[in-house]
Amino acid sequence: MSKEKVVLAYSGGLDTSVEIAWLKNAGYDVIACCIDVGEEKDLVKIQEKGKQVGAIESVVIDAQQEFAEEYVLVALQAHAYYEGKYPLISALSRPLIAKKLVEVAKQYGATAIAHGCTGKGNDQVRFETEIHALAPEMKIEDPIRDQHMSREMEIAYAKENGIPVPITKESPYSIDENLWGRANECGVLEDPWATAPEDAYERTNALENTPDAPDYVEITFEQGVPVALNGQAYELAELIKELNQVAGKHGIGRIDHVENRLIGIKSREIYEAPGAEVLLKAHKDLEDLTTTKDLAHFKPIIEKQIAETIYNALWYTPLFDSLKAFIAESQKEVNGVVRVKLFKGNVICEGRQSDNSLYSLDLATYTSADAFDQESAAGFIKLYSLPSVVHAQVQQKLAAAEQLVLK
Amino acid sequence: MSKEKVVLAYSGGLDTSVEIAWLKNAGYDVIACCIDVGEEKDLVKIQEKGKQVGAIESVVIDAQQEFAEEYVLVALQAHAYYEGKYPLISALSRPLIAKKLVEVAKQYGATAIAHGCTGKGNDQVRFETEIHALAPEMKIEDPIRDQHMSREMEIAYAKENGIPVPITKESPYSIDENLWGRANECGVLEDPWATAPEDAYERTNALENTPDAPDYVEITFEQGVPVALNGQAYELAELIKELNQVAGKHGIGRIDHVENRLIGIKSREIYEAPGAEVLLKAHKDLEDLTTTKDLAHFKPIIEKQIAETIYNALWYTPLFDSLKAFIAESQKEVNGVVRVKLFKGNVICEGRQSDNSLYSLDLATYTSADAFDQESAAGFIKLYSLPSVVHAQVQQKLAAAEQLVLK
Amino acid sequence: MSKEKVVLAYSGGLDTSVEIAWLKNAGYDVIACCIDVGEEKDLVKIQEKGKQVGAIESVVIDAQQEFAEEYVLVALQAHAYYEGKYPLISALSRPLIAKKLVEVAKQYGATAIAHGCTGKGNDQVRFETEIHALAPEMKIEDPIRDQHMSREMEIAYAKENGIPVPITKESPYSIDENLWGRANECGVLEDPWATAPEDAYERTNALENTPDAPDYVEITFEQGVPVALNGQAYELAELIKELNQVAGKHGIGRIDHVENRLIGIKSREIYEAPGAEVLLKAHKDLEDLTTTKDLAHFKPIIEKQIAETIYNALWYTPLFDSLKAFIAESQKEVNGVVRVKLFKGNVICEGRQSDNSLYSLDLATYTSADAFDQESAAGFIKLYSLPSVVHAQVQQKLAAAEQLVLK
Amino acid sequence: MSKEKVVLAYSGGLDTSVEIAWLKNAGYDVIACCIDVGEEKDLVKIQEKGKQVGAIESVVIDAQQEFAEEYVLVALQAHAYYEGKYPLISALSRPLIAKKLVEVAKQYGATAIAHGCTGKGNDQVRFETEIHALAPEMKIEDPIRDQHMSREMEIAYAKENGIPVPITKESPYSIDENLWGRANECGVLEDPWATAPEDAYERTNALENTPDAPDYVEITFEQGVPVALNGQAYELAELIKELNQVAGKHGIGRIDHVENRLIGIKSREIYEAPGAEVLLKAHKDLEDLTTTKDLAHFKPIIEKQIAETIYNALWYTPLFDSLKAFIAESQKEVNGVVRVKLFKGNVICEGRQSDNSLYSLDLATYTSADAFDQESAAGFIKLYSLPSVVHAQVQQKLAAAEQLVLK
Repeated sequence: MSKEKVVLAYSGGLDTSVEIAWLKNAGYDVIACCIDVGEEKDLVKIQEKGKQVGAIESVVIDAQQEFAEEYVLVALQAHAYYEGKYPLISALSRPLIAKKLVEVAKQYGATAIAHGCTGKGNDQVRFETEIHALAPEMKIEDPIRDQHMSREMEIAYAKENGIPVPITKESPYSIDENLWGRANECGVLEDPWATAPEDAYERTNALENTPDAPDYVEITFEQGVPVALNGQAYELAELIKELNQVAGKHGIGRIDHVENRLIGIKSREIYEAPGAEVLLKAHKDLEDLTTTKDLAHFKPIIEKQIAETIYNALWYTPLFDSLKAFIAESQKEVNGVVRVKLFKGNVICEGRQSDNSLYSLDLATYTSADAFDQESAAGFIKLYSLPSVVHAQVQQKLAAAEQLVLK
Repeated sequence: MSKEKVVLAYSGGLDTSVEIAWLKNAGYDVIACCIDVGEEKDLVKIQEKGKQVGAIESVVIDAQQEFAEEYVLVALQAHAYYEGKYPLISALSRPLIAKKLVEVAKQYGATAIAHGCTGKGNDQVRFETEIHALAPEMKIEDPIRDQHMSREMEIAYAKENGIPVPITKESPYSIDENLWGRANECGVLEDPWATAPEDAYERTNALENTPDAPDYVEITFEQGVPVALNGQAYELAELIKELNQVAGKHGIGRIDHVENRLIGIKSREIYEAPGAEVLLKAHKDLEDLTTTKDLAHFKPIIEKQIAETIYNALWYTPLFDSLKAFIAESQKEVNGVVRVKLFKGNVICEGRQSDNSLYSLDLATYTSADAFDQESAAGFIKLYSLPSVVHAQVQQKLAAAEQLVLK
Repeated sequence: MSKEKVVLAYSGGLDTSVEIAWLKNAGYDVIACCIDVGEEKDLVKIQEKGKQVGAIESVVIDAQQEFAEEYVLVALQAHAYYEGKYPLISALSRPLIAKKLVEVAKQYGATAIAHGCTGKGNDQVRFETEIHALAPEMKIEDPIRDQHMSREMEIAYAKENGIPVPITKESPYSIDENLWGRANECGVLEDPWATAPEDAYERTNALENTPDAPDYVEITFEQGVPVALNGQAYELAELIKELNQVAGKHGIGRIDHVENRLIGIKSREIYEAPGAEVLLKAHKDLEDLTTTKDLAHFKPIIEKQIAETIYNALWYTPLFDSLKAFIAESQKEVNGVVRVKLFKGNVICEGRQSDNSLYSLDLATYTSADAFDQESAAGFIKLYSLPSVVHAQVQQKLAAAEQLVLK
Repeated sequence: MSKEKVVLAYSGGLDTSVEIAWLKNAGYDVIACCIDVGEEKDLVKIQEKGKQVGAIESVVIDAQQEFAEEYVLVALQAHAYYEGKYPLISALSRPLIAKKLVEVAKQYGATAIAHGCTGKGNDQVRFETEIHALAPEMKIEDPIRDQHMSREMEIAYAKENGIPVPITKESPYSIDENLWGRANECGVLEDPWATAPEDAYERTNALENTPDAPDYVEITFEQGVPVALNGQAYELAELIKELNQVAGKHGIGRIDHVENRLIGIKSREIYEAPGAEVLLKAHKDLEDLTTTKDLAHFKPIIEKQIAETIYNALWYTPLFDSLKAFIAESQKEVNGVVRVKLFKGNVICEGRQSDNSLYSLDLATYTSADAFDQESAAGFIKLYSLPSVVHAQVQQKLAAAEQLVLK
């Protein structure tokens, strides 16, 4: 009788290599699946290692461009910051990875999907919820969590099963990264009073080491999509990488956040998102110029909901589809160029222009030749303040009546 | 018969000095009233000038501490940024000034209040709406707007009426400032593509001229009120001023904003709010540590409404009272210290501690000795993803039925 | 030289007939334009009268089906009740009428559009704002408001200009109606303590006169669109009319609302919307069955914004387009049938069924054979209540410390 | 050594009587605690039975007035309907019961609290979360859920332990009730297409059996609190009971709701809340008269959050305290009388009056003597529609440019 198959989200590291062995020992045929969302992994090497440690198939997928266009872009256009600070780095890649795992599982006739998340983070909830939403019939395996494997147990299990154990000292940090940024937790960071040490960062220079001359970038947007830097066209994934480089050099995009996890505890996270920070600020700046006041004042409600919906692993839901429909419609007039100065950790939008600009010099200027009908202001103010006037009159009437009573 | 009295919001400048003359010529006894909300005006000189150019009384009021405690504090605790960018500088002082003008008017038996706003800005709406809300019976005079006085007309009128005309060249900018910041519009700023020139700024150094060594400040909050810097107690107004100095030196708090005015047009504004920027970031950082997730996730809805309500001149309304009651209650546990690094335009919250900290190392850590019950996670995920599972099952059932029909 | 042309929103009544004369006397060629949105007007008669009283052209348009499909449907799917009570009757027709007026104006080369609204209602704001949004170059004429014409003046002007004056006594009410309902204000209704008299109603029976046996209707929805009654297919406009009949007979849909007008005053309005009431309740009932919890809990935010956006005359805005995109997406799974009992003023949704039903008997039942994993509940509750536990522990620790200090 | 003590939420029924035995057998001294929130239980009898079946102490608490004033009132003033339909009957009593259980536990030195909820409803989450929030150190016992006791097992266990077994046939329904209403689920109700049978209702007459003459009630509110009926003062609990009687007689307050439970499944519930329905409608009606537009338009956001926060068992949280502070402040001007007609299932607010009325006949009337400045309307409309005008002009410019390109 043929064995059941399981698709494992494989990174090439110790945890998931041990999982290959464990799943195999548990009676599965294991298909290792490594999905690159912008870590710029050595996919060839990982593919080989997967087979080497026991997988019957080892699949690698470069999903960077799909990640940029289908996942990151929504977050950018929605100015998605969870709790006003975290630009949703890992939370953004999870639904894509889940989708790819399900696709591979269906392709190979697998009945289960495995991941290597711990039992106290967001990722276990995200992987399992997103997989359930796409393929509720799939079993889910998470041996690391469910077998309570400690680091020491993993190393012992690796040795028993002929899995190479890394000889370098284990990093004190737990890191996840992709195109949109890099997330870091654990170690010394677990004391929220302690300054994050310099070795917690990788994509950004310390301010002390940034160049003493700024870079200037002109970012062109078409319908809310960044399409060019300094006039040169880029695919979105490449554009983000390019900005990661230049903004990282200037120390842009470090975030130190005590955040509320999905599972109800607070954790302290260090994020780096240099390119994201630049694009998010520039996009907002262009919207300030091109978006009507009523839309600009309501969109933040949608944005907050989008950030929380992504964080909470509800990407593949009718709610999220509806939120995305709102955002897509809202971007039609977000066309133009923003000139950004990158310097000493700062993203400074110095100028913005657009054919869809709703800024009217004729209306805004204070010169005598202006188009604005100042006469209208008096009428406007009269009706605008009318509810306040009526309310104040009623209050005065009541106060007067009370005075009478007191006398 | 005695004349009617008018209280004029008096700044000592040409506009409002001309208004004294105009109101006097229109038959009023003028009471000039100058209110200091943190411009650190020479009140003695302004008081003298008011009388000199024709006021029968000249009143000066130092309202800085009241401004800090009753107005700025609400904005701080509500993280109030209009359109995500503007920390409500002028918008915050208007209700206080309106209140003081009404108080003076009642004290002197005046029947009218005068101001000198132009006919296309927010301030005319704000002054008039806030005055109406407090004293709907007051007449409002605005000769500059209603007489369509240009600069040239003002100078001519000043000369006719013995008012000294400033000999310095007029600033190209229109500026308003107080404790919480400085607002600048007009001139070259009216081209949103143009970089704001260095002379548009006064409270902040250009990044190029900031010190090469950071300053560190420990800010202590009690129930959401900043009460000490580096362990030294301060009155709130003084604390803000102190931070304006040190943060301004580091080039912190420059804001370049294309914003939607109350009266329906876009304008481009340059703000400087160094102390505000530090306090707003530090306060949010402490809330991240001390506030429960459910409150932290709902408070932004209140914050957005507070920012818009202040911007829209609705301070003296039952809505605003209700919003303030929410905020006051939300601050009870916002106690602790935030350590902030000020450097090269950046406000970096490096550490935070609090007796009310809800961060639990025992829960957050990934070490084996942790208190978190990882077993619970599986049950949680099962119920958490249940709606997604049911939805997916229904979709699959419908898809299968459709397949059957197609066959 | 040829005259300028003006398109007048023409009703056939005294007000707008007088306006034809006034506009003609002011030098315009007048094109009378009557748009039927469900009042079931005698269009032939109105067309004739338009010409008879001086219009050079008289255009009539039956816009009922377009009104139902493009305007009413959005309000239905968004459960749009302004201030929780008013189902947006007149507010819904204004953007359609404005669009038709602009189309006719462009067709005839007119440079102006005229309407007959008074100076204190919502309608003047709505017509002018919606017309501006579609054709900002159009002049707008409103002689009734701008000439301050009283009823007596209108009658005199009519006699001078050969316009027939109605001999019947003027109604004490000001009424507007369409497919979706009937709005009534003025007269005795202006005392909010007074019971609305029976003659204020036209589409609904008094409860005292309703039948003593109920009617039952099964309403079928496809993607949120009501498509059939008791299994019989209907065009939307006809379906609404049919429900107006049957629900009106049972006294359903009377609304007595003290509402906040756009222009800042309160007014008391009597509405009748029998069909609307039935459809709104049935549609919500079906959504309760077919919509996921997360979408069901966020959609009301969109609904409230849609109601206010329509009320505030912002139909032709990018905000409204974005809101509509959300709603359209949200309706994909709103398929099924609702069985409604209509009786004595009540709309009672007694049963609902759908292929998209997310109600799962297996999960919801309390019998022993149920599919729900009760074990998971404990884990869920543990994580769900974790923030409350941590908060309580911190509070207890602080209370204990305070006790120590007090001792 | 003395035994540990447990406080059990005791109803006198089979489930909780069996739990007394089970807890005793498990080594606890059991304190039975029965809390009356308006079921009008025979407290003496329940107290006796508690001791009789094995409790060492049996405590009964009449908490009706506290329930009305501290819990129901918040829901009333917040117009709290979960998912727009359910007026939070059981959800409202749970935090009060949890608080009383904790008080009794502390008084008797108990270390555990027990309840008898099943494993798939909201109540287990509510009891445990609210108890945790007040006393995180308490153990929680739920033998029915945790021992998977079926009805049959309970009866067997009762017989073994000398507990009287009711001889009447078990009700097909699962019912919970209090002052504010009655909730009913299970049985035939589990088919959402089935009409709820008449025996599912107890507090309300079928419409077919209601009186043919209406009752009229004038309800007086002071600061949002209902204080009198037809001019006669009532304690709140009594006032609600009185309205339950009269409104129930007229068939008011039946609710048939397919709702989303906290734990992620849909269930179908039948509620009866006659008094609640009357008070909620009357209170909203009075707010329509006395509350300013800006507050009236924002309060629903708070209301929705309050409904969900109560439903989700987060009563004892800083979020809920902040929400309550908002509501308390918002009620200061909600004074006056509403005249309500109760008839055939309908609550009809026919008239409302208040010293705080913001309805101004002078402003609202269309008569010529009105106070409204119609001139201001033109200025208002001009500024109000300015953003639409600018947007339309930009669109036209772009369309024209595109035309040129196409040629």
